[in-house]
Amino acid sequence: MLGNYQIDRQAMPEHAQSTSTVALAEQLAAEITRRIESGGLRPGERLPSVREAARSRGISTFTVSDAYQRLTTRGLLVARRGAGYFVAPPLGRPREALPALSTLPIDDDWLLSRIYQRDPSILYAGCGWLPDHWYDRDANSAAMRSIARRKAPFHPYGDPQGYEPLRREIARGLCTQHLHVGADQVLMTQGASKALDMVACTLAEPGDTVLIDEPGYCNLISCLRLRGFKPVGVPWNADGPDCERLATLLAQHKPRLFFSNPLLNNPSGASYTLSTAYRVMKLLDDAGCTLVEDNVAQPFHPAPPPPLCSLGGAERHVYIGSFSKSLAPGLRVGYVVASHERIERLLRYKMITGLTTPVLNEMLAMELAEAAGSRRQLNEAREALQEAQYVCQQRFEAAGWTLFARPAHGLFLLARPPHAAPVLAEQARDAGIVLAPGRLFSCDGSHADWWRFNVAYSRNSRLWDFLGTLRHK
Amino acid sequence: MLGNYQIDRQAMPEHAQSTSTVALAEQLAAEITRRIESGGLRPGERLPSVREAARSRGISTFTVSDAYQRLTTRGLLVARRGAGYFVAPPLGRPREALPALSTLPIDDDWLLSRIYQRDPSILYAGCGWLPDHWYDRDANSAAMRSIARRKAPFHPYGDPQGYEPLRREIARGLCTQHLHVGADQVLMTQGASKALDMVACTLAEPGDTVLIDEPGYCNLISCLRLRGFKPVGVPWNADGPDCERLATLLAQHKPRLFFSNPLLNNPSGASYTLSTAYRVMKLLDDAGCTLVEDNVAQPFHPAPPPPLCSLGGAERHVYIGSFSKSLAPGLRVGYVVASHERIERLLRYKMITGLTTPVLNEMLAMELAEAAGSRRQLNEAREALQEAQYVCQQRFEAAGWTLFARPAHGLFLLARPPHAAPVLAEQARDAGIVLAPGRLFSCDGSHADWWRFNVAYSRNSRLWDFLGTLRHK
Repeated sequence: MLGNYQIDRQAMPEHAQSTSTVALAEQLAAEITRRIESGGLRPGERLPSVREAARSRGISTFTVSDAYQRLTTRGLLVARRGAGYFVAPPLGRPREALPALSTLPIDDDWLLSRIYQRDPSILYAGCGWLPDHWYDRDANSAAMRSIARRKAPFHPYGDPQGYEPLRREIARGLCTQHLHVGADQVLMTQGASKALDMVACTLAEPGDTVLIDEPGYCNLISCLRLRGFKPVGVPWNADGPDCERLATLLAQHKPRLFFSNPLLNNPSGASYTLSTAYRVMKLLDDAGCTLVEDNVAQPFHPAPPPPLCSLGGAERHVYIGSFSKSLAPGLRVGYVVASHERIERLLRYKMITGLTTPVLNEMLAMELAEAAGSRRQLNEAREALQEAQYVCQQRFEAAGWTLFARPAHGLFLLARPPHAAPVLAEQARDAGIVLAPGRLFSCDGSHADWWRFNVAYSRNSRLWDFLGTLRHK
Repeated sequence: MLGNYQIDRQAMPEHAQSTSTVALAEQLAAEITRRIESGGLRPGERLPSVREAARSRGISTFTVSDAYQRLTTRGLLVARRGAGYFVAPPLGRPREALPALSTLPIDDDWLLSRIYQRDPSILYAGCGWLPDHWYDRDANSAAMRSIARRKAPFHPYGDPQGYEPLRREIARGLCTQHLHVGADQVLMTQGASKALDMVACTLAEPGDTVLIDEPGYCNLISCLRLRGFKPVGVPWNADGPDCERLATLLAQHKPRLFFSNPLLNNPSGASYTLSTAYRVMKLLDDAGCTLVEDNVAQPFHPAPPPPLCSLGGAERHVYIGSFSKSLAPGLRVGYVVASHERIERLLRYKMITGLTTPVLNEMLAMELAEAAGSRRQLNEAREALQEAQYVCQQRFEAAGWTLFARPAHGLFLLARPPHAAPVLAEQARDAGIVLAPGRLFSCDGSHADWWRFNVAYSRNSRLWDFLGTLRHK
């Protein structure tokens, strides 16, 4: 759409893409923008012709024409055929300010969406991502340059199932983790979140009861409810789901699906032991219930245990992974692994509801996964998280908080204050700190006294000063 | 996940990212891969130590270590701590061959998914995209390099509503087309397909009857049915919907939504006249029905008419656009424009069902929309399509086919053969030609005699030779 209303005043010479010409045009465009914004050039005013401007500035007519066209695309100039370029009338309503984070009620919408509108003055102690500066921009730029250099085409729709070389790498990686699958059992998705939604919509029917970790992934609870499912929580202990309760719930609801995030669980940080894994898989297989294993935190574990699906197998169960959490959340590259028959159904769903996933992002994920810089970044993040877990756990216990589990790795730590603190999130919000209340991670409100902390942000003294003031109130 | 099972044998020096080191490591990795694949190195065989290999080849230990680690990531080597690197056992099942296009039944799944698995021997006369070589790879690579150079961060989740500078450009562009909206009324989506799905799921309830063009967009019909809606077709003439039929259907079904693709319609190529637009908007407003205007073909029109939403306004109606069709389908960048209240609801749906859209793709769309190379590419595509429309229309009429409309622009042309040809698609498939049967673009089977052609592929003599043989049968 932006390409319209362009006037091609002259054929564009071969050097159109050269850096210096582009830079010069952008410089001229910036100068004109400043003059428009300062009022030096007024709406309706005619600009010097391309030829005049080129002569008076001693630059090529192409450069001037390119600058004018950029400004036309940006809505600052209008071109009138045969008459030249004019400063555009002020267009569009001014951008309305976003509601301040502090004025909004703390609900799932707040945690799912509002806190993504990053405000550098806020401490995101309850968020679900790593600090920006933990990611290696140089590695990211190098990966981009490498793809640009190869002129790897990113414009076609690409393979409906996702970039095949990446799917092959994923399958190989899973094989080393004892989950033996082929590349044709891997379907790329827009992040693990979309994978969870797709699996629910494809393998269950609206109205179905489905099981989910209690406490469990906030966004998944909202998503299941939005799609018309009835999520029921399977209570967790520090070593994974309570198998007795799981057995009862399986008998009671005969659910088709159990969504579980078994490693460095969101929100509790707890992980299955292999023995719990075995008992859970046995219960599920006996009940004919499919495990949907969301293993997105796996890259944060330096020596991850085999996934649960490696016990139950990908013919019966479903595995979900992601490059988002570890390498670059903004890439939105996740995947589902399942039986061929289920992959067919998921593929059909994917294409009908949004066509292919972007091949560029999948090429970049592959490039990053192999790059030395990214591997170093991931190692550093693992070590920093490990240390932060240790420090935060010490501090919480010293302050009298109870820990749900003692994770050695990963982002999350679930903790309960020594005294009930029903408005803690609101108090924190008013102090510029985002906290994540346990009730948002619960199907039945049973974890309302708990709080999810992201240890990557929780060593900050602002958090501890704030929690300290509470104790003295 | 691929980052695991790495062994960091030495600290990585600062020059880790330098091109030559990376290239050398990749060269060594490729050589070892060839030796493994040819059987020169057998599963279980130990590779020379990093130090030995570096000495014998006169390269740095870092380069060797990087190559070994790449191969470990790819599953070709395994590292055993303290013992070195070994050729991995053959892992994973062999990739199963895809079913050949020619063995599959021609249904919506075939058109929506199977034909995306590009086979260079097949002529895609019925597909929905431009030929690969019409896109400017150099412009795409230049845009990538520009973003890499700026080290624009693509790793964070980004603004939930989408990259704000791009939303501002979109709003400005729409203002020049008389649709006056602000950037806060624009929500970025994974292509226009996802936007259509989101709007349906957010603004209607499963079970609702919704109106759609007849003939209409194949994927949308499947999507609406998948989501539990009842799509009912509004018959089109060559100048847009039949207003009398529309009035009857509005009275009969009281639908909340009418999905229409008014410009260079998919599949018919027809466009609304402004007078039809006025009558349609009036009928919809009187009936309290919301138009969902899918205007994805707009960039292919050299002087597009104002969108229908510019008459009815974005407070009451919904506009969908895309950078996919014109600049790079694989980027998957689309958007919805609606009232603030609806954008809030759509945003919540977007975040719950898949979090943010990738900021990199939105930065690239903006870069491409402004680049001289892309503008030239788009101009050339417009002109080539215009000529192809003319040539194809002449040929079809000479062969006795009936044209649904005579589009001057765009990809699509809907035509009916002089004699009923119920198995034409199967015959074409057997001749290596993909044709798109009209029945896939119809809610009620009323366009079963028609065929959608993509004129970008339909000047090819293979198509005309094939159609010629039919006449003589």
